Amino acid sequence: MNGDENTVFIGSKETMNYVMAVVTQFNNGSDEVVIKARGRAISKAVDVAEITRNRFVPDAEITDIVTDTEEIPIEEEDRTTNVSSMEITLKL
Amino acid sequence: MNGDENTVFIGSKETMNYVMAVVTQFNNGSDEVVIKARGRAISKAVDVAEITRNRFVPDAEITDIVTDTEEIPIEEEDRTTNVSSMEITLKL
Repeated sequence: MNGDENTVFIGSKETMNYVMAVVTQFNNGSDEVVIKARGRAISKAVDVAEITRNRFVPDAEITDIVTDTEEIPIEEEDRTTNVSSMEITLKL
Repeated sequence: MNGDENTVFIGSKETMNYVMAVVTQFNNGSDEVVIKARGRAISKAVDVAEITRNRFVPDAEITDIVTDTEEIPIEEEDRTTNVSSMEITLKL
């Protein structure tokens, strides 16, 4: 785990937006970038890591992939729902 | 990597179908089950691993998560497309 520095959160934008965010972090001198996603965005997080490595930063390696389950409160209801989360660490 | 024994491939069925498939393998004496998925099914694979651990097989640990990129031929076109794949290893 680390702070939000060097972290790219995957949301609903196009995959290549996040690839460029990761590549930019490496180009700015980071030697480690963490890609975080929840729920359906997890598939996109894996695409981002794979595309970054295969096309843009061939020296980057996936050094760690961690999954977890997070409890998310449901708005206006008095209960929570579970959602899977994933963190992928890319390192030079 | 292993053969298809003890492997659950994630497809388009409901998540709980795959959870039950994994739980059944453990109940039948396997001490290791590999969950494989491609593309959008990757998010579901993570759900399957998390639900299996949290609700049904608390002793199971994720010992390995591997991602890859596979070239898939596009039917009736003379080219291929890339798709991300993931293997999650659950071990007792």
